[in-house]
Amino acid sequence: WVRTFRSNRFIALNDGSTGSNVQCVVDFERTPEDVLKRITTGAAVEVRGLLVASQGSGQAVEIQVQEVVVHGDSSPEEYPLQPKRHSLEFLREIAHLRPRTATFSAVFRIRHEAQYAVHQFFHEHGFYHWATPIITSSDAEGAGEMFRVTSLPADNPPRTESGEVDYSEDFFGQSTNLTVSGQLEGELGAMALGKIYTFGPTFRAENSNTTRHLSEFWMIEPEMAFYTLEDNMQLAEDFAKHIIRHVLDRCADDLAVLDQRLQQEEQSKPAAQRQPMGLVEKLNFVVNNPFVRCS
Amino acid sequence: WVRTFRSNRFIALNDGSTGSNVQCVVDFERTPEDVLKRITTGAAVEVRGLLVASQGSGQAVEIQVQEVVVHGDSSPEEYPLQPKRHSLEFLREIAHLRPRTATFSAVFRIRHEAQYAVHQFFHEHGFYHWATPIITSSDAEGAGEMFRVTSLPADNPPRTESGEVDYSEDFFGQSTNLTVSGQLEGELGAMALGKIYTFGPTFRAENSNTTRHLSEFWMIEPEMAFYTLEDNMQLAEDFAKHIIRHVLDRCADDLAVLDQRLQQEEQSKPAAQRQPMGLVEKLNFVVNNPFVRCS
Repeated sequence: WVRTFRSNRFIALNDGSTGSNVQCVVDFERTPEDVLKRITTGAAVEVRGLLVASQGSGQAVEIQVQEVVVHGDSSPEEYPLQPKRHSLEFLREIAHLRPRTATFSAVFRIRHEAQYAVHQFFHEHGFYHWATPIITSSDAEGAGEMFRVTSLPADNPPRTESGEVDYSEDFFGQSTNLTVSGQLEGELGAMALGKIYTFGPTFRAENSNTTRHLSEFWMIEPEMAFYTLEDNMQLAEDFAKHIIRHVLDRCADDLAVLDQRLQQEEQSKPAAQRQPMGLVEKLNFVVNNPFVRCS
Repeated sequence: WVRTFRSNRFIALNDGSTGSNVQCVVDFERTPEDVLKRITTGAAVEVRGLLVASQGSGQAVEIQVQEVVVHGDSSPEEYPLQPKRHSLEFLREIAHLRPRTATFSAVFRIRHEAQYAVHQFFHEHGFYHWATPIITSSDAEGAGEMFRVTSLPADNPPRTESGEVDYSEDFFGQSTNLTVSGQLEGELGAMALGKIYTFGPTFRAENSNTTRHLSEFWMIEPEMAFYTLEDNMQLAEDFAKHIIRHVLDRCADDLAVLDQRLQQEEQSKPAAQRQPMGLVEKLNFVVNNPFVRCS
């Protein structure tokens, strides 16, 4: 997909697999004008040519284009993601397109690496993945408000003789909810396989609109038989450090994008309110220092 | 946990991490009688001693026990999982304990390895994991009956002026369901990051009680930008073979348990109805042969 097309000559091409674009140098005198016009931000193009050491600065290699084929057009008047800085609020309104932006594609690539590191860590430490039920009739430890799951008609549900909703007619023969935690089943798993972890979606039906509240989110719950509190703390520390170290190793470019965005936002704050560390600095701090433990 | 305790002397001990037990040889003359009595199937015991080359057949090493500590008792009268063959139907009734059986612990260990291989395959092929919404208002391609998700009171939901259920009062301001597929959001992901896969729970509210129907199951959906049909087919074949090969490599013992169980079941069938291949043989056949492709 075309990120930008400068001077009828330089295509910044990106397939989403990394944040880095490939610069493609078009010979505009040899390229038909109707093709040149269709090379717009967001368009899907196929480029053939020679990969050569770059003449300009900013990239090690570039493609000297011999042929451009446009597979998908993108109207400059209609495509909302133009090459400029968009506010996060604006991007919320085009949630279907925001994964294409530099910021969000960085977030999703980092998220993927973090997720992979979760599985890797537990796998290498002898844990088994345990898929706990999403639809459940239990309430864990009363962790939060629950969504009801039903196949009864909302308009006119079946009633018992005393006039109450007859959940024996519902799909599972009783009232069911979306899980708030897989802990109960996780404990059963640990009592069978020794060490298990869950990693799946959980739900909260609390109507609190804070920046830290989601009604649907993925949660990780390890459960281990015969662990002491000390073992638990060690696992938590090793786990957090493994994930962060993996992301630092694998996502340097994407972290730099977010770090830069954060620093720009910090600049707009009064000096006293600015965070003492940048993003990457903060992650390195966590990895390189032992966690303080409260007794 | 104690699997069996024979002759007041041999504990078959298993922590669930593999299907293989460790044989622990107790010196019953030096062990207090009240401790010996508490070494029962299902009990949690801690054993200290020397790991030595085994005198008997059936295992390479065994533990010459110096001390046994019982951490958790298991009453032989009440604990339902005694060391004998249980029917799958019986095990359904004690779903909280069946992961401890040889058959189900094998299933769960194999499931874990298969799941890990899924993430590994996609990760190594440049795919990004994409977590698609579980609660949704879309119906994919009408893949199946949906469960409704609601925070409205079932008994007396709010109504509009015309008497219909007022979903604008529901949690998300509209009627929502459990997803039947993450495909729609997966396609958006592929149009941003190039190649993505989903791996999460999906739901069907169809009340068909067959052996192949589940109302809740985990599904994998890869979506790739710019793939041809040929690319798709190659990916599907490579994917299936990678998962099976990984499981064959890592789960030989657990597959042998299931293979044996299958063969016992096959023996009870008339010769004409028996499957031509055993389980491991069948898996090897899939891995070692190219898939036939219909044009």
